[in-house]
Amino acid sequence: MKQLNEIESPPTASDSAGKLGEALVHDLDTGIEEAVFDALSVGDTDQVRVLVEELHFSDIADLLERLDDDHRATLVEILRVNFDPDILPDLDESVREQVIELLGVDVFAAALAELDSDDAVEVLEELDEEDQKQVLDAIPDGDRQLIEEGLSYPEDSAGRLMQRELVTVPTFWTVGDTIDYLRKSAEQEANPLPDHFYSVYVVDPKHRPVGEVHLDTLLRSKRPINLLDIMASDLKQIPVTTDQEDVAFLFRQRDLASAPVVDDAGRLVGVVTIDDIVDVIDEEHEEDIMRLGGVRETDLYEAALNTTKARFSWLVINLLTAILASSVISLFDATISQMVALAVLMPIVASMGGNAATQTLTVAVRALAMKEITATNAGRLIGKELLVGAINGCLFALLAGGVAWFWFDSSALGAVIAMAMVVNMMVAGLAGTTIPIYLDKNNIDPAIASSVFITTITDVVGFFVFLGLAALFLI
Amino acid sequence: MKQLNEIESPPTASDSAGKLGEALVHDLDTGIEEAVFDALSVGDTDQVRVLVEELHFSDIADLLERLDDDHRATLVEILRVNFDPDILPDLDESVREQVIELLGVDVFAAALAELDSDDAVEVLEELDEEDQKQVLDAIPDGDRQLIEEGLSYPEDSAGRLMQRELVTVPTFWTVGDTIDYLRKSAEQEANPLPDHFYSVYVVDPKHRPVGEVHLDTLLRSKRPINLLDIMASDLKQIPVTTDQEDVAFLFRQRDLASAPVVDDAGRLVGVVTIDDIVDVIDEEHEEDIMRLGGVRETDLYEAALNTTKARFSWLVINLLTAILASSVISLFDATISQMVALAVLMPIVASMGGNAATQTLTVAVRALAMKEITATNAGRLIGKELLVGAINGCLFALLAGGVAWFWFDSSALGAVIAMAMVVNMMVAGLAGTTIPIYLDKNNIDPAIASSVFITTITDVVGFFVFLGLAALFLI
Repeated sequence: MKQLNEIESPPTASDSAGKLGEALVHDLDTGIEEAVFDALSVGDTDQVRVLVEELHFSDIADLLERLDDDHRATLVEILRVNFDPDILPDLDESVREQVIELLGVDVFAAALAELDSDDAVEVLEELDEEDQKQVLDAIPDGDRQLIEEGLSYPEDSAGRLMQRELVTVPTFWTVGDTIDYLRKSAEQEANPLPDHFYSVYVVDPKHRPVGEVHLDTLLRSKRPINLLDIMASDLKQIPVTTDQEDVAFLFRQRDLASAPVVDDAGRLVGVVTIDDIVDVIDEEHEEDIMRLGGVRETDLYEAALNTTKARFSWLVINLLTAILASSVISLFDATISQMVALAVLMPIVASMGGNAATQTLTVAVRALAMKEITATNAGRLIGKELLVGAINGCLFALLAGGVAWFWFDSSALGAVIAMAMVVNMMVAGLAGTTIPIYLDKNNIDPAIASSVFITTITDVVGFFVFLGLAALFLI
Repeated sequence: MKQLNEIESPPTASDSAGKLGEALVHDLDTGIEEAVFDALSVGDTDQVRVLVEELHFSDIADLLERLDDDHRATLVEILRVNFDPDILPDLDESVREQVIELLGVDVFAAALAELDSDDAVEVLEELDEEDQKQVLDAIPDGDRQLIEEGLSYPEDSAGRLMQRELVTVPTFWTVGDTIDYLRKSAEQEANPLPDHFYSVYVVDPKHRPVGEVHLDTLLRSKRPINLLDIMASDLKQIPVTTDQEDVAFLFRQRDLASAPVVDDAGRLVGVVTIDDIVDVIDEEHEEDIMRLGGVRETDLYEAALNTTKARFSWLVINLLTAILASSVISLFDATISQMVALAVLMPIVASMGGNAATQTLTVAVRALAMKEITATNAGRLIGKELLVGAINGCLFALLAGGVAWFWFDSSALGAVIAMAMVVNMMVAGLAGTTIPIYLDKNNIDPAIASSVFITTITDVVGFFVFLGLAALFLI
């Protein structure tokens, strides 16, 4: 009992800790943002510089995103000297483009050369070909090669995602050899170690990975112990061209912290770590939710005109489907002119079907994204949704039928809307599952089967069945 | 140029590596699932045992989810001896409940005791109070205390998420002291070290964290070096009651791999690692996408009757809003009976507004979830969406007006639908942003403002403006 009470009303002491946490987590919000904004508005450059100096690069990135175009340009001017390159990967795409333009090719290229190769590739891959070439030309040879190599892997592949810097050791080394090597490397001027790493990889003479030793394993083992005896050898090796969504799925499925990436010959070429996966998961989510909502991509920071253009194409499709639904209604215009109640009630049938279909679609799209629907259970799922549609269809047939009867004092009208409701809700369950599953089977993103398409079906069926039955039985 | 060519048509060698990756990532799909299914169908228990023995626990969890009830019960019977406790946290909630019931309290309690405390809490928190108590009573004292402690933190807090097992060292230790301690601890029978860890935490005598030493830093430093000299002291400390979404935001924002959790007195009580955060991010996203789609939670594996019940309440709300929209239409029944074309065209106005509003809503809800909308840019965002609505409204006014004019040979009808379109698209932009922002400000999940509510507004406004203008100008 006790802990449950605590769950519902946490004691005041931990409550204040919660607020502390809130402040800690959102520390950019607490005044600094507005202070920078105010200083920018009055043109107090020195004050802005002082305020920004203390900020973490990801907070500066947030700040740049939230400012309007003029203030953003001013802030970039202030940041230009000693520009922190880590700001770039954290920026939203459309803001990043603007910042890059403001910085100019030379400053941008210098910043890029300072980034880790995977981050540099991530920033550069969004630019168009010509801009890429111009920037690459301004980058020193060594860095340029690493970045070009990264860009040579397919978009959204493990090769683009992986970090090339990693620690490899031969099979015959001991714990002591490895620790000595790490200490010695750290002392060298051209330090070959990555900034951070979680494992060392044991490779054979052909540079193929044979095992992985987590750093904590290394630390709890005595110096003379052979790496072969403590390494984990059940490595999940990721081919370099694997799609990043599959990589993310593997990480989730196996609770991995990192995984080695190999080329066609099985040679170790890099390592993917879980923090890169978090970005992939966020991207994936964004794609799903945006497509379901009929938006191509997040356009929060886009200019109004670009946003209008992007949304327009989707709305054109909707206009066509709406005209299709209207033409179904126009088949029955004679019926409607005899009984206007039909025009009043027909949106109810369509809307209920549309919402039931959206519910089913959402569950199906999410399950497909999580790879939870397979050949063995797809049929069962469709059957279940059909059943759910049938049961809810009967329940809402009673409710809507009752409302129609009471409202227009016609039991026949109630019966017609009730029948149409059952049919449309079952169609909703069927279309909401079969269409995304069919698209997924044909390697089309099922989220594209957004409400627009599914609700077209329920609109057309809803209007047709309701008005058709009315024409048959009521007129 | 070269790398861009490669992006579009990767060479065949890497293509086959991609397929290898596909097979590797989805290895449960390739035959094993169907083989188990077939063996279960013919009742060949031994064959099932052989097939399942080789599987990773997360694959067994997937398998259990995908089977129907009867086969699932048979498989649980087969797995009962030496039941792998790690299967439990990986199961979907409704399947897990069923598996727990099949296992019985004693086997389940034994499995729970073997899990890490945070996993055990995760499994147990989903059960109802009575079942929790029954299971806790069957767990040995020491394990039970740890689990009860975990359950005492608020739901969805850092305390529930964190791992209690961690490595702390005093401020006066050197690298050598730490390595010796880790080696000695690993030898002890009651090994106090966690299974895996990425950092050691330096704590003061009051057990408050003062710094963190990443394991790679420890490994590249010489033995006599003091931890105080190499530790990272800019720790982001997370109060134990912080909401898990805020914790996830912090991890993303700062690219953290792990972070210390402290109690009210600032004492180190646990550590949150990035792999726990991946689950939180998935959960969060699931919540957003489901709420936007008008589903309370994923119900893929729920029985049809439970699913029906859960969806019913949402559809009831939709029925009420649909009746509201219908009553707006009924205000104009005299107008419609004089001009049936209005009934044919009115769904176009409503549907375009509804879809434009859903687009805006989706972008706003996602941006709010990512904490990208703040006091400084909210007004600008609303203004932008209003502008987007106005521009697209004018464009679709021309298109829909043209269609109406052509279809019903009436320029006046075209003008009326054009005006209604502009108004409704602007309302869509306004409602799609202000409503989620308002809800978020009042600490209500903005995703709950799902299409159902937003489209009610665009339905009501669309019908009212279109039919109202028609009544004024056409009749």
